[in-house]
Amino acid sequence: MVGSRWTAGPARSAALRKRGPVLERAILDAALEQLSTVGWSGLTMEGVAAGAHTGKAAVYRRWPSKEDLVVDALQAGLPRMDGVPDCGSVREDLLALCRLVREAMFSRSGFALRAVLHECDQVTAERFHDVIFDGVIQPGVERVKEVIGRGIERGDVRSGALDSYVCDVIPAMLMYRTKVCGSEWGDEEFGELIDQVMMPLLSP
Amino acid sequence: MVGSRWTAGPARSAALRKRGPVLERAILDAALEQLSTVGWSGLTMEGVAAGAHTGKAAVYRRWPSKEDLVVDALQAGLPRMDGVPDCGSVREDLLALCRLVREAMFSRSGFALRAVLHECDQVTAERFHDVIFDGVIQPGVERVKEVIGRGIERGDVRSGALDSYVCDVIPAMLMYRTKVCGSEWGDEEFGELIDQVMMPLLSP
Repeated sequence: MVGSRWTAGPARSAALRKRGPVLERAILDAALEQLSTVGWSGLTMEGVAAGAHTGKAAVYRRWPSKEDLVVDALQAGLPRMDGVPDCGSVREDLLALCRLVREAMFSRSGFALRAVLHECDQVTAERFHDVIFDGVIQPGVERVKEVIGRGIERGDVRSGALDSYVCDVIPAMLMYRTKVCGSEWGDEEFGELIDQVMMPLLSP
Repeated sequence: MVGSRWTAGPARSAALRKRGPVLERAILDAALEQLSTVGWSGLTMEGVAAGAHTGKAAVYRRWPSKEDLVVDALQAGLPRMDGVPDCGSVREDLLALCRLVREAMFSRSGFALRAVLHECDQVTAERFHDVIFDGVIQPGVERVKEVIGRGIERGDVRSGALDSYVCDVIPAMLMYRTKVCGSEWGDEEFGELIDQVMMPLLSP
């Protein structure tokens, strides 16, 4: 293959060619981009490789299948839910937590996740349900426990409130009202959920 | 076709041949039976017809597709949730209600429904989700409202308790803990849910 590309200096091709973690990041981003534009059925390993300016082999080397790649891309793209800022009261903390969950579900990953769940077969869907559980629900429950624990220390939550049923109420209601009722979650709806259901369960 | 069957008296064939609602009932039962034994993929209109001792045409005349037939069979097979007996207190009424929901989900229809959801494609699954919503969830929410209303009249529930978030908590928690946590629902778990979450929300 003769042409100007072959005579380009090493500096240019080195700058274009990514490696290691930078390449992996580019591949995962490209996968998320593909999911957002052409969806699960339209996504191909070749298309993802092209989007990451790399070869198909570099993709397959790390991700043996389309499912493996998409699971990692979705996970990597979800906002981290490492901690809820201390907002001064359990009500405000819970509100902040709800907003974090909403942010995750309305992130590019969140949208892609929901779209993918509609497109793929049931066996593959299981793996994507795991992404939701590991990436959003489980961290969400952990954050609820932290917020309630903080409230107990502060004195605005009764001491027995850290039981598993109470900690499940927020994730359960968010999931139920979203999936079954098709509800949208604005700040007003979060406030109603917290005031009508959580505060009576937590107040001393 | 020559043989003893053709010479059987009209009385025998009339007794075997069902009509009208009896035939429809037999077809729906046969469909549920097929679902329980060979599942969604194994179910055929021919197999259902044979199970109902009728011809394929009789099935297709009423149900143009496999999905239509299975939706009706599942719906018809779910226990009715028309009313919760008055057990004397809101706690006991809620316990009775939870048992009704469990009965529905563990009925032959309930098992078949869950199995089918795993086997079929996403578009078909939507129709079966509707069966769960129309046949179990929606009636369940109505029964929660009745039980809470009864409790308000009795005086063991605070007057403002009939708000939609509170009424959604039981279905939300049952669904969440079943789907996400894979929990089993014994009477002890129902009791914990009611005592730890519902009673604080309902008590005057």
